[in-house]
Amino acid sequence: MTDFNQTRAAFDLPEGVIYLDGNSLGPLPRGAAERVGRMMTQEWGSLLIRGWNEAGWYVQPRRVGDRIAPLIGAEPGSVVMGDTLSIKVFQALSAAVAMRPGRRVILSDSGNFPSDLYVAQELVAALDRGLELRIVAPEEVETAIDDTLAATLLTEVDYRTGRLHDMAALTARAHAAGALAIWDLAHSAGALPVHLAEAGADFAVGCTYKYLNGGPGAPAFIYVAPRHAETARPALAGWMGHAAPFAFDPRWIPASGIERMRVGTPPVLGLTALEAALDIWEGVSLDAVRRESIRLSEAFIAAVATRLPGLPLASPRAPEHRGSQVSFRHPEAYAIVQALIARGVIGDFRAPDIMRFGFTPLYLTLAEVEKAAGLLADVVLTEAWNQPEFRVRAQVT
Amino acid sequence: MTDFNQTRAAFDLPEGVIYLDGNSLGPLPRGAAERVGRMMTQEWGSLLIRGWNEAGWYVQPRRVGDRIAPLIGAEPGSVVMGDTLSIKVFQALSAAVAMRPGRRVILSDSGNFPSDLYVAQELVAALDRGLELRIVAPEEVETAIDDTLAATLLTEVDYRTGRLHDMAALTARAHAAGALAIWDLAHSAGALPVHLAEAGADFAVGCTYKYLNGGPGAPAFIYVAPRHAETARPALAGWMGHAAPFAFDPRWIPASGIERMRVGTPPVLGLTALEAALDIWEGVSLDAVRRESIRLSEAFIAAVATRLPGLPLASPRAPEHRGSQVSFRHPEAYAIVQALIARGVIGDFRAPDIMRFGFTPLYLTLAEVEKAAGLLADVVLTEAWNQPEFRVRAQVT
Repeated sequence: MTDFNQTRAAFDLPEGVIYLDGNSLGPLPRGAAERVGRMMTQEWGSLLIRGWNEAGWYVQPRRVGDRIAPLIGAEPGSVVMGDTLSIKVFQALSAAVAMRPGRRVILSDSGNFPSDLYVAQELVAALDRGLELRIVAPEEVETAIDDTLAATLLTEVDYRTGRLHDMAALTARAHAAGALAIWDLAHSAGALPVHLAEAGADFAVGCTYKYLNGGPGAPAFIYVAPRHAETARPALAGWMGHAAPFAFDPRWIPASGIERMRVGTPPVLGLTALEAALDIWEGVSLDAVRRESIRLSEAFIAAVATRLPGLPLASPRAPEHRGSQVSFRHPEAYAIVQALIARGVIGDFRAPDIMRFGFTPLYLTLAEVEKAAGLLADVVLTEAWNQPEFRVRAQVT
Repeated sequence: MTDFNQTRAAFDLPEGVIYLDGNSLGPLPRGAAERVGRMMTQEWGSLLIRGWNEAGWYVQPRRVGDRIAPLIGAEPGSVVMGDTLSIKVFQALSAAVAMRPGRRVILSDSGNFPSDLYVAQELVAALDRGLELRIVAPEEVETAIDDTLAATLLTEVDYRTGRLHDMAALTARAHAAGALAIWDLAHSAGALPVHLAEAGADFAVGCTYKYLNGGPGAPAFIYVAPRHAETARPALAGWMGHAAPFAFDPRWIPASGIERMRVGTPPVLGLTALEAALDIWEGVSLDAVRRESIRLSEAFIAAVATRLPGLPLASPRAPEHRGSQVSFRHPEAYAIVQALIARGVIGDFRAPDIMRFGFTPLYLTLAEVEKAAGLLADVVLTEAWNQPEFRVRAQVT
């Protein structure tokens, strides 16, 4: 039985803040700083180089991957940590196109996070062999899948609107067309139940600083379906993905299984903070998280609709078609988000006109959500955003 | 005036250990754990997502790069942090070969760290357009440079032998042949004076967990010569290297200058530990470090030679041809290194028969070095290594 009072108590949340931006950066798990401090003084400080063996740093990317796997419906041993999400996209995509040498199209959609598109574009340009990145509207993905495709590269939950793709259906359709399916779980992992194995996904990637609360710049994960694990070959390979890293063989021989997706030395500090964050998930049911997320987001939509009936919802209205966020559009979205932050409600602006609010049941209560909706209405109705300090657009938002 | 008593006091060193492996993983800087803890509680914990602006996380890769630059003789604004060394090798090499479209050879040497070779091999295989990775012996590099080369990919200091390449001469020769020069500074940065700008290097990469003491898995750096900074285009590109990351443009438009080499979200915990480590370098002269490193390593060689005259030195005898390490060969190198570790002297084994000892004047004294040489001789002469517990080869060393 998931106890959200208990999970909430596992975070250090600042006073007076209603945090609706855990879909961008999750909050600090209580004890994470102490855990990292212990790793630094007792492991790095005392063991020095011996920490790679004696403190288990070397196996940490797999150990942590094995804890992520059940959260995303992946087979044991099919997930490994490292680098950043964009780098893992690059590995998955380069491996996928190499596995479909006769195919020339990578299909993505305009709701994908731009970095995924950048990775694909620059890979296509570098490979210079007639590959094409085809970008369609999210609702056109299904019909755009045909037998010219090498792979689909899709983010399950749209970072702006929260629109949720049907992973199982699109994966099946990709497979029927002879293509591979790569899923970006940036806004899925820890937000809702994900069933990679059940859906038959070929590759998946994700970050851990959002719903998994690993901290700023926390390492990414990559999943390779076990049926591909001995053949997938990323264009970007390093010594930690070698079959025998410490043989210092001059040729790269890929490690067996998911380990081949490792590249260089793993970020031990970041992985250690993430381990503390993953402790919170012990005993938590993602079905319960999903139910509570829907309860919170429905309450938010209802409360906003009552006071701001004209405010356009940018997210799908039906909760089964949304991830764990709700977005509204307003021409003054940026200034409104700033004014809300000044009132203690932290949401996100996404260009050009999106106000984005994330719902994270592990630490967010219904009372907070209702209060946030009220404050949003106050700001919009009183034009509290229409003041100089909220209208100066910061360079980084 | 560099005061090595002061720099030594800036580290938390375990009692009873003589650490000759700072060329693999530097020790814990005093205060680094506290600094990371403060970042976690006061920045992540309190500011949450606002930390990207208000705590300067977003600009941290450049801010830290600007502190690395003077240590490697790089122009201000020419260095940025992120990812791992292998990933930065991939970016530099892919950018370099794209800048020399008519050329087909990448030249490296058999003393290069295998991961650099793996990156090159897998890039060549993925690009599949007739590129060739040519690997020659280190001493043959100079004569192997010809006008078929797109780029040289060399590590300045050989990870096994400590052999030091002449960066200025080889770079000049590469340029005379119309090729670009990429330098891996893994065993150079913080070990000896490096003059990237003066040597005319085109690209350089390095890690920060060795002589720069950034901790296990600390982030890497990449240097692009300012003359290439507006044209270099890596095959691996992400949103933080976009000209306007928060415009969420669907096309990748490279940022001006070195920023384009950023990929994804930076590892803030790792960068923060590194910042603490870089404080120690304030006021330290790399010329003084080099002088002291030579004094220590010469003393070590002399002391070992006195007691073990037959032990083959694997490093160049002349200090001007060595980095900051000394290696010996012995068929039982692995077991000897284990037996030495049991006596508190931490060195490194590198397959097949290398015992490798790093000299790090920031925290290593002459007395320690002489004691270590004596203990090495004791172990070898008494065959103390010839005991079961030292002869079991661990999987990871």
